Amino acid sequence: MAVSQTIDDQCISTIRTVCPEMVQAAKSGHPGAPMGMAAMAHVLWSRVLRFSPSNPSWANRDRFVLSNGHACALHYMMLHLCGYDLTMDDLKNFRQIGSKTPGHPEAHETPGIEVTTGPLGQGIANAVGMAIASRHQAAVFNKPGLQLCDNKVYVFCGDGCLQEGVAAEAASLAGHLGLGNIIMLYDDNQISIDGSTDLSFTEDVAKRFESYGWHTQIVADGNSDLDGIEAAIRAAQSDARPSIISVKTAIGFGSEREGTAKAHGAPLGDDLIEKVKQKFGQDPAHKFYVSDAVRAKYQEVQTANKQQEETWNQLFAKYREQYPKEAAEFQRIYIDKQLPANWESVLPTFGDDAPTKATRATSGACLDKLTMALPELIGGSADLTPSNNTAGFQKQAGDFQAKSPEGRYLRFGVREHAMVAIGNGLASYGLIPFTATFLEFLTYCYPAVRLAALTQQQQVLVFTHDSIFLGEDGPTHQPVEVNAMIRATPNLGFFRPADGTEVAASWKLAIQNKTGPTLLALSRQGLPNISATSAAGVAQGGYVIRDVNDSKPTVVLVASGSEVSAALAAADKLEADNSAHKVRVVSMPSTVLFDQQSGEYRRSVLPLSTPIVSIEAAMKFGWERYSHHQIGLSSFGLSAPIKDIKKHFGFEPEQIASTVESMLSESQKQAAEFGVSPAAFVGVLAAQK
Amino acid sequence: MAVSQTIDDQCISTIRTVCPEMVQAAKSGHPGAPMGMAAMAHVLWSRVLRFSPSNPSWANRDRFVLSNGHACALHYMMLHLCGYDLTMDDLKNFRQIGSKTPGHPEAHETPGIEVTTGPLGQGIANAVGMAIASRHQAAVFNKPGLQLCDNKVYVFCGDGCLQEGVAAEAASLAGHLGLGNIIMLYDDNQISIDGSTDLSFTEDVAKRFESYGWHTQIVADGNSDLDGIEAAIRAAQSDARPSIISVKTAIGFGSEREGTAKAHGAPLGDDLIEKVKQKFGQDPAHKFYVSDAVRAKYQEVQTANKQQEETWNQLFAKYREQYPKEAAEFQRIYIDKQLPANWESVLPTFGDDAPTKATRATSGACLDKLTMALPELIGGSADLTPSNNTAGFQKQAGDFQAKSPEGRYLRFGVREHAMVAIGNGLASYGLIPFTATFLEFLTYCYPAVRLAALTQQQQVLVFTHDSIFLGEDGPTHQPVEVNAMIRATPNLGFFRPADGTEVAASWKLAIQNKTGPTLLALSRQGLPNISATSAAGVAQGGYVIRDVNDSKPTVVLVASGSEVSAALAAADKLEADNSAHKVRVVSMPSTVLFDQQSGEYRRSVLPLSTPIVSIEAAMKFGWERYSHHQIGLSSFGLSAPIKDIKKHFGFEPEQIASTVESMLSESQKQAAEFGVSPAAFVGVLAAQK
Repeated sequence: MAVSQTIDDQCISTIRTVCPEMVQAAKSGHPGAPMGMAAMAHVLWSRVLRFSPSNPSWANRDRFVLSNGHACALHYMMLHLCGYDLTMDDLKNFRQIGSKTPGHPEAHETPGIEVTTGPLGQGIANAVGMAIASRHQAAVFNKPGLQLCDNKVYVFCGDGCLQEGVAAEAASLAGHLGLGNIIMLYDDNQISIDGSTDLSFTEDVAKRFESYGWHTQIVADGNSDLDGIEAAIRAAQSDARPSIISVKTAIGFGSEREGTAKAHGAPLGDDLIEKVKQKFGQDPAHKFYVSDAVRAKYQEVQTANKQQEETWNQLFAKYREQYPKEAAEFQRIYIDKQLPANWESVLPTFGDDAPTKATRATSGACLDKLTMALPELIGGSADLTPSNNTAGFQKQAGDFQAKSPEGRYLRFGVREHAMVAIGNGLASYGLIPFTATFLEFLTYCYPAVRLAALTQQQQVLVFTHDSIFLGEDGPTHQPVEVNAMIRATPNLGFFRPADGTEVAASWKLAIQNKTGPTLLALSRQGLPNISATSAAGVAQGGYVIRDVNDSKPTVVLVASGSEVSAALAAADKLEADNSAHKVRVVSMPSTVLFDQQSGEYRRSVLPLSTPIVSIEAAMKFGWERYSHHQIGLSSFGLSAPIKDIKKHFGFEPEQIASTVESMLSESQKQAAEFGVSPAAFVGVLAAQK
Repeated sequence: MAVSQTIDDQCISTIRTVCPEMVQAAKSGHPGAPMGMAAMAHVLWSRVLRFSPSNPSWANRDRFVLSNGHACALHYMMLHLCGYDLTMDDLKNFRQIGSKTPGHPEAHETPGIEVTTGPLGQGIANAVGMAIASRHQAAVFNKPGLQLCDNKVYVFCGDGCLQEGVAAEAASLAGHLGLGNIIMLYDDNQISIDGSTDLSFTEDVAKRFESYGWHTQIVADGNSDLDGIEAAIRAAQSDARPSIISVKTAIGFGSEREGTAKAHGAPLGDDLIEKVKQKFGQDPAHKFYVSDAVRAKYQEVQTANKQQEETWNQLFAKYREQYPKEAAEFQRIYIDKQLPANWESVLPTFGDDAPTKATRATSGACLDKLTMALPELIGGSADLTPSNNTAGFQKQAGDFQAKSPEGRYLRFGVREHAMVAIGNGLASYGLIPFTATFLEFLTYCYPAVRLAALTQQQQVLVFTHDSIFLGEDGPTHQPVEVNAMIRATPNLGFFRPADGTEVAASWKLAIQNKTGPTLLALSRQGLPNISATSAAGVAQGGYVIRDVNDSKPTVVLVASGSEVSAALAAADKLEADNSAHKVRVVSMPSTVLFDQQSGEYRRSVLPLSTPIVSIEAAMKFGWERYSHHQIGLSSFGLSAPIKDIKKHFGFEPEQIASTVESMLSESQKQAAEFGVSPAAFVGVLAAQK
C-alpha cells in the first residue's frame, strides 16, 4: 500500500498514526477525533492556511481554532509538521508535567495555539470574536491597494460544540453580523461519548445554520476526498456569509474502533495501533515516525508560507511609508500590544464635592472618556446598554455591524456567555474588550471568564446592579454568591469600588491588567462621594479611610463598595454612642489586590488582636479570611424597594452599629468563657453562623 | 368605545390597564410585555388552559410557564382573575416586601406559579422538563380508556429567551424527543432593551425551530386576532411535534410608548396610563378596575375548570378501583410527593474490607440500587454516561426517547445548562431528577442550579472528576474554584465524600432533601476505604474520624473527599516523626451541614485555641471559616498524571505532614512576635497567602 500512496496520503497516514501514539505514550487522551479529522487538517494546513512558524504572532496570519480541544494531539502534530517550536520530544511528552503539549490546548503554554479550548463550544464563540476583530482591523486600516489585513478564521468543531448553548448564541450573532471571514469545518462523525448522535442530537444542523444566515456545505467523504474538502473551503472563502462545512468523517478512522464511541477517549492500545500502522503501510517498529517525504512536503508548505509573510512585510513597509501614522497605530495595537502614552490622563476625577452617584454612572463617565483615548477598546452589552451605562461609548464609537465594521460597539443581544467568549477572541487579536451585563449574570458567562483568567487574556467586565440593593427585580436578579465566586477564581481581577474616585482607579488598573480579566462590580443605586478614597489606596486593594488619633483602634470595620459609606456612618454612630470605641474603617475594593500585598502591609491595615468586622451586602462566606465577625447575608435577597431591603437585612448604618456592638460584647463573653482572646475566633467557632 | 367592546375586548383592556397600574404603584417594573401579551394570555386562560385555582397542585392541570418572567404583572393578573389566592391587594403590593407578587415569578412564593423565572431562557428549558415529565407519567400510568394524564405545557417567551443558549439547547432536545405536548407562544414584538431586534437578532426563528424538528406557526395580529391565536393553539395541540407560535405583538400596546424599547422596563407614568384607560374606554379615576362583566366572564372560566377537575377526580376514582396499585403509586409520586417506605434499605454498605474505589464508582453502585427502589428517580448525563457512572441506572431504567417515554434515563447530549434546567421542570412535577457531568461543568449550568436552590426544588447533581486529580485533561477540566462557589450559594446541599460509606450516606441525604438541590462531588481516582467513616457523621457535616487518647490534640487536620485519607496518613507521619504531636483528623464531607450544627457541636469537633489546618485540593478561599491554616491551591491546576500533580501541589501525605509542621512552627514564631495566641490568626493576617 505504501508504494501507491500519494504524498498527501502519506502525510495523512502519518498524522493518523502519530496522534494515537501520542495518546498511547500518555496513557490517556483522545485518539479518535484526530484520526477522523486528519484529512481536513492536512488540507487546511498544506493548502489553505497562512501562518508563520518562526513568528507565531504575525499580525496577518490566518487564525485556527480547535473548538473540540480534546483533539489537540492533532493540533500539536500539525504545529510540529509546520515547523513551530514543538519538537518530536514535545509530542512524546503529551499530557506530561511541564510539557508544551497539555491535555487540552492552552494558548499561554504552546506557540501556535490562539485560544484555550476544551470546554465545548467556547472555541466557536472565540472564533466569532476573532472574525469581528479581523473585520474591524481591516475596516480601520486597509487602504486602497494596500490590503494590510485580510486574515481569516478557521475552526474545527465537533457535535459536542454544536450542542452547547454558547456556540448557538455566537453562531446566531455571527450570522447577524455577516462575518464571511469565518469558516468552520464540522467534524460530522455521528458519534459522541454516549454513542450514536441518534441518542440525543438529531437536529438538522445545516438548516439551523441557514436560519442564522450562514452558508452551508457538505463534504460527503471527509476521510479521503481532499479536493472536495479544499473546494468547499474555497467556496466558503468567496461567500459573503459565515460558512459551516459539514465534513462527514469516521472517528478513529483506520482502527478497529472506527466509527464507535470507544475510539473517543481512551488509548487504542499498542496492538490496535500496530494494526493501524500496518494498514497504512507503515512499519510498526518505527514509533512516532515521520518519513523524509512527509517532512519534505511540509517543508514546502513552510517555504510557501514564509514567502507570504515576506510579501506582507513588504506591503506593510510600503503602507508605513504612505500612512506612517496609521502604520504606527497598527503596530502599537496589533503587534506591540502597548497602550498609548498618557491614556490615563483622560480619566475623570471626583473631588470632595462630587455629588451622590451610582458607581455604574461614574463608570459610564470613565468609559466615555476612554472611548477616543483608546481606539483598541471595543465592546458592548448583552442588551442592557442603558442599564450598564455603556451608551456614551456607543454614541462615540458607533455600532459594529455588517455595514459598519469600523464601529466598536457590539450589540451582543441577550447572549452573555457568547459575549464574554467573543471578548476572548477579540483579546487574542490585541484589542481590549469590555463586556457588560448585570453582576448576577456572571453566572451565565462564567466559563468564558474562567478561560480568560486561565489563559491570561485581558477583558474588562463592566457588571452593574451588584447587590440586593438593586431592589424590586428580586432574588432572581440579585447577586449574593457572586463576589465569593469571583474571589475563588485564580487570576480574576475584581474591584467593587465605593465611589467615583475608586471607580476611576479601578478602570485604570483594569486597562493596565494585560494578563487577565478584571471585573468591575458597580452599584445600581447612588452612593455618596467619600473624601478619603484614593487611587493609591485602590491599587493596594484595601486601605484605611478613617482612623483613630493617638491610640489603637478598638474595632476595625472593613467594607467594600456600597457598604463603605455605611461603615463610615456606623463608625460615627459607634463612637458617638460609646466613648470607649475607637473605630477604624478600611475600604476594601479589591481583596484580590490586598492578598498580593506584603504581610506587613496587610497587618498594618488589619491589625492583629483587634476585632475586625467585615461588612458586605453579599454572602458572608469567604470574609473569614479578613475578619473575625461578618455582617452580610446568609440567604438569597428579596423583591422590595431598596429602603426596605436595607432595613430587612440590617444594612442601615444604625443597624450596623448595633450589630457591631453586640458582636463585640458577645465575643468578649465567649472569650472569657473559653479562655481565649476575642480575636481568636475562626469564623465557624464563634457563636454567629 | 366601551359600548361596542365585546366581553373578550373588555377582559383584554382590563389586563392592559391593571398591569401598568401595578407597575406604576410599585414605581418599577415592566409594563410593556404584559400589554403586548394581554390578548394571548386572555385566549390561553379563558379558552384553553385547564387549571384549578382552589387546588393549584391538581395533578392533571396544564402547566403554564412565563419564561420572560419580567412580564409577571400579567401572570399575577391572570391568576387573580382566575380565582387563585391572589387578591387585588396582592396586585397593589406588586414588588413590595413580603408580598406574594415579587418582581419576577417565584414558584415558592405564589400559588399558581409553577417554576421560578426571570433569568432569561430558563423557563423554556423548565418547560421541556415538564413536557418530559408529562409524557413519562402518561406512559407509565395511562390505561386503555383511562387517560389519567394528558396535561400539556404552555410557555410564553420573548426575544431574550430565544437568544439565550440554554433555550437553544433545550429546544434542540425537545425536537429530538418529539415532545408534542409543549406549546410555546413567542411574543414576537421585535423590541429588546437596546431597541429594535434588528440590532442583534435577525435570525429566522421559525426556520431554526424547524431545524430542531418543531412545528411552527405565525399569528400576524397577536394584539387582537383572538380566534387566530386560538386556532394556532388548537393546531399545535394536534401536531405531534413541539410547537412554537410566533405571535406578532406590539410592546406597550395602546400606550404612547407602543412599539418602543421605552415601554419595556419603566413605569409608564400616571399621564400615559390615563391616556391608555381613556383609549380603552375606561374611567381613569377607577384604578385597578375590573368590571362586573369581566369578573363574570372569568367566573365562567373558573366554573368550567372546576367541572374539568371534577371529571378528572371521577376518572381517578374509577382508575383507583381498577388499578389500585398504580393509583396508589401515582398518588404517592405526583400528589403526595412522598418517598416509598424503606427505600433507603437498598443502599449498599461498605465494610472495613471494602476495596479501593473511586467515589464516582461507589456512587454508581448506590444509583444502581436506587433505580428500581425509586420509580420517581429520573435523570441522565450530559453525554458522559460512562465517566459519570450512570450506565447502571440506564441499563435498568431504559432510555426516555420519543418511542420509549416510559424510560427514565435521559440522554441530554452535551447540554449541561439545559440539563439542569430540565431537571427543575421534572422536579416541579414531583419526580426526583438527577443530572450528571464533570464537576468543572457546574460552571456551564450554574444559573439553573441556583434557581433550584432559590425556589427550593429537589435535584441530585452527580458531578464527578471533582479535583485536579482527574489528571491529564488539565486545568480546563479541573475544578479549583467550584467548591467555594457551591459553599457560597444559599440552600445548595453539598457533599464531597471520602469513601463508599460517605457516598451512600450522601445519596441518602440527597434523596431526603426535598427542599433544594444537592451536589455530590465525586472522585475520578480510586480512594481507600476508611473504617472510621459513618453515615451519622456525614449527617453532621463534619466529624472526628481519628482522635487523640487521654489528651488534648495539639493540631487538628480537617479535610474533605480524597484528602481525608491523605490527612489520616499525614497524621500518622506527624506523630511518628515527633512524639509531641497529638493529631486529630476531622472528615468534613459537607461544610453546609456542619454550619447547621450547634456551636457546641462545632467547637467539640474543631476545638477553640487548637491550631486547625484544612486540607482540600481546591482553592483555599473560604476554608478560613474552619481553619487557621489552609493547605490547598492558589492557582489553576495542570495537565499531568495524578502522581505528578499530587507531588507538584504538595498533596502526598509526607508533604502534607511537612507543611503542617512548618505552618505550626511559623505560627508559633509569629504568635511570639506579635504577642498573640497561635490560634489568633485570621487567614490573611498569618504569613501565608
